[in-house]
Amino acid sequence: MRGVILSKPGVVQVEDRPDPVIIEPTDAIIKIAATCVCGSDLWPYRGDDPADRIPMGHEYVGTVTAIGAAVTSVAVGDFVVGSFFASDNTCEICQAGYQSRCVHAQVMGEIGTQAEYARIPLADGTLVATPGAPDADLIPSLLAASDVLGTGWFAAVAAESGPGKTVAVVGDGAVGLLGVLAAKQLGARRIIAMSRHADRQKLALEFGATDIVEERGDDGVTKIKELTGGLGAHSVIEAVGTQESMMQAIRSTRPGGHVGYVGVSHDVDLPGLELFFSGIHLHGGPAPVRRFLPELIDLIWNRTIDPGKVFDLTLPLEQAADAYAAMDQRRATKALLTV
Amino acid sequence: MRGVILSKPGVVQVEDRPDPVIIEPTDAIIKIAATCVCGSDLWPYRGDDPADRIPMGHEYVGTVTAIGAAVTSVAVGDFVVGSFFASDNTCEICQAGYQSRCVHAQVMGEIGTQAEYARIPLADGTLVATPGAPDADLIPSLLAASDVLGTGWFAAVAAESGPGKTVAVVGDGAVGLLGVLAAKQLGARRIIAMSRHADRQKLALEFGATDIVEERGDDGVTKIKELTGGLGAHSVIEAVGTQESMMQAIRSTRPGGHVGYVGVSHDVDLPGLELFFSGIHLHGGPAPVRRFLPELIDLIWNRTIDPGKVFDLTLPLEQAADAYAAMDQRRATKALLTV
Repeated sequence: MRGVILSKPGVVQVEDRPDPVIIEPTDAIIKIAATCVCGSDLWPYRGDDPADRIPMGHEYVGTVTAIGAAVTSVAVGDFVVGSFFASDNTCEICQAGYQSRCVHAQVMGEIGTQAEYARIPLADGTLVATPGAPDADLIPSLLAASDVLGTGWFAAVAAESGPGKTVAVVGDGAVGLLGVLAAKQLGARRIIAMSRHADRQKLALEFGATDIVEERGDDGVTKIKELTGGLGAHSVIEAVGTQESMMQAIRSTRPGGHVGYVGVSHDVDLPGLELFFSGIHLHGGPAPVRRFLPELIDLIWNRTIDPGKVFDLTLPLEQAADAYAAMDQRRATKALLTV
Repeated sequence: MRGVILSKPGVVQVEDRPDPVIIEPTDAIIKIAATCVCGSDLWPYRGDDPADRIPMGHEYVGTVTAIGAAVTSVAVGDFVVGSFFASDNTCEICQAGYQSRCVHAQVMGEIGTQAEYARIPLADGTLVATPGAPDADLIPSLLAASDVLGTGWFAAVAAESGPGKTVAVVGDGAVGLLGVLAAKQLGARRIIAMSRHADRQKLALEFGATDIVEERGDDGVTKIKELTGGLGAHSVIEAVGTQESMMQAIRSTRPGGHVGYVGVSHDVDLPGLELFFSGIHLHGGPAPVRRFLPELIDLIWNRTIDPGKVFDLTLPLEQAADAYAAMDQRRATKALLTV
């Protein structure tokens, strides 16, 4: 099969790779219908994380082509959505809703789903079948559920977005934008998107943002305070992962408020004393997307939400290098790869 | 009146200080019945925080002797308990339960309640009257409610202690011990006190601890994991405020679990990436004791709880220096000063 390999920082190649096979009786093999490039794929692409001939990709939707002997919840022919962590969905941690930290968790990024096929470990716990074969126009949204929507949704939940709440969103990438969508669905009264890009502002407003703040850092914090009677937002979604974005999120939150942070931390150190006196709640990490998949698939299937709008570039798998370059250069928010 | 002044690190003096008077119509004056020395008073005492002729003390119970024209909820003669932050209890932050971050918050430590009298700002929002004049044996427990009990209680709530939960407690000072009591009251199934002092272990067991762990740091974390099927505790109370204690708390918590931290941070920097992948909830800060006072007074008044047991040294105000020295040298867990 064909699959994406990052040879070294900046060099994306589509190569012949071995067809995946069932290894464990709990495995499934899926023929991937669509995959995409994640903001976090840019860390190794830019050399900020190690990159030495690594398979790429952890987002996927597709059709089951084979199952191991122990698999019971999905069948060959099912169209499925899965998370970027494989999980058994039965251990105590999974049952508490933290499937990304399942005691048997496996990282899909190590398998690499920017490819024609993928082996999905712990298929029963990882995959959720759609009610039937999806209309083609639903595929981008279902693919979004696999990571960016699930992650934005988790951030909104972690930030305790809900009725009556003012939610600020730090980061206008796909996850931040879908955090806006999630906050809207969760009933937030006011949603402040922090963005200085006209196209992303437009999408944020479409997804439910009520206010746009262009300022960043301390100026951004000042602006959020101005918009919230000096108190700060009840809920802040952090979807970047830098020191600046984390401090912007923490400082934009009122005492007793909640920060939901999902940007993968890079060189972040949180000052204990400031955090202490902030009085905020801090929760985040790798999103337990599996927790939300049934609900998200339902909302997509019923066409209540259209998270697939975050994809503003669609290319065939063979042009993966162009997709990476476009996202790296911010010519695209999120690139979908058709397979 | 007589009152405690920290002249410089290590030098506690009881001096003549001006009698407090009503300044704002929202003030009350109380005649202090009992006050005490806080673990946090040891920071300036040890020179870890600035100390240059500062009034000391922020814990207090006593009898109202005068009220300002605007005070309506307490009357002269009432026996009252207050928090170490004065708060209006009406602003949006107070109403959300974060009175320690009230928009009009005033720090009682700047007034100094290790004294015969104290001015209490925002009396209506700060003070809670007991149902009547307390029996003498209830005074230590009511005094504990003013800070250490309220703080331990907040930590237990912030850590989401509750039925079915395993709660670990880092720190065996008065706050940690009362965190054990709080976790017990909140219905925790298992309470692991981390302590290596026999007398404190004994009190922890009396307050409801089911297990004692003597190991600290990574060894302590390993022990907590062993006791919790490899997962970590659901809830961890942090009541120290150092880098080691914070990391011990975070690492002892299972993914999706909760850390409630109330030790005032000193030279703490939390590593972003480790925190991210921990998947825990982190909440804490200066406890909004006022939120819990009515409930705590009730539990004490009905003799359901006896938090006053944390006081293992009682001295008259004039011997405040001895009280500080005893706590500094760990000869006492918590020293009460009679006035």
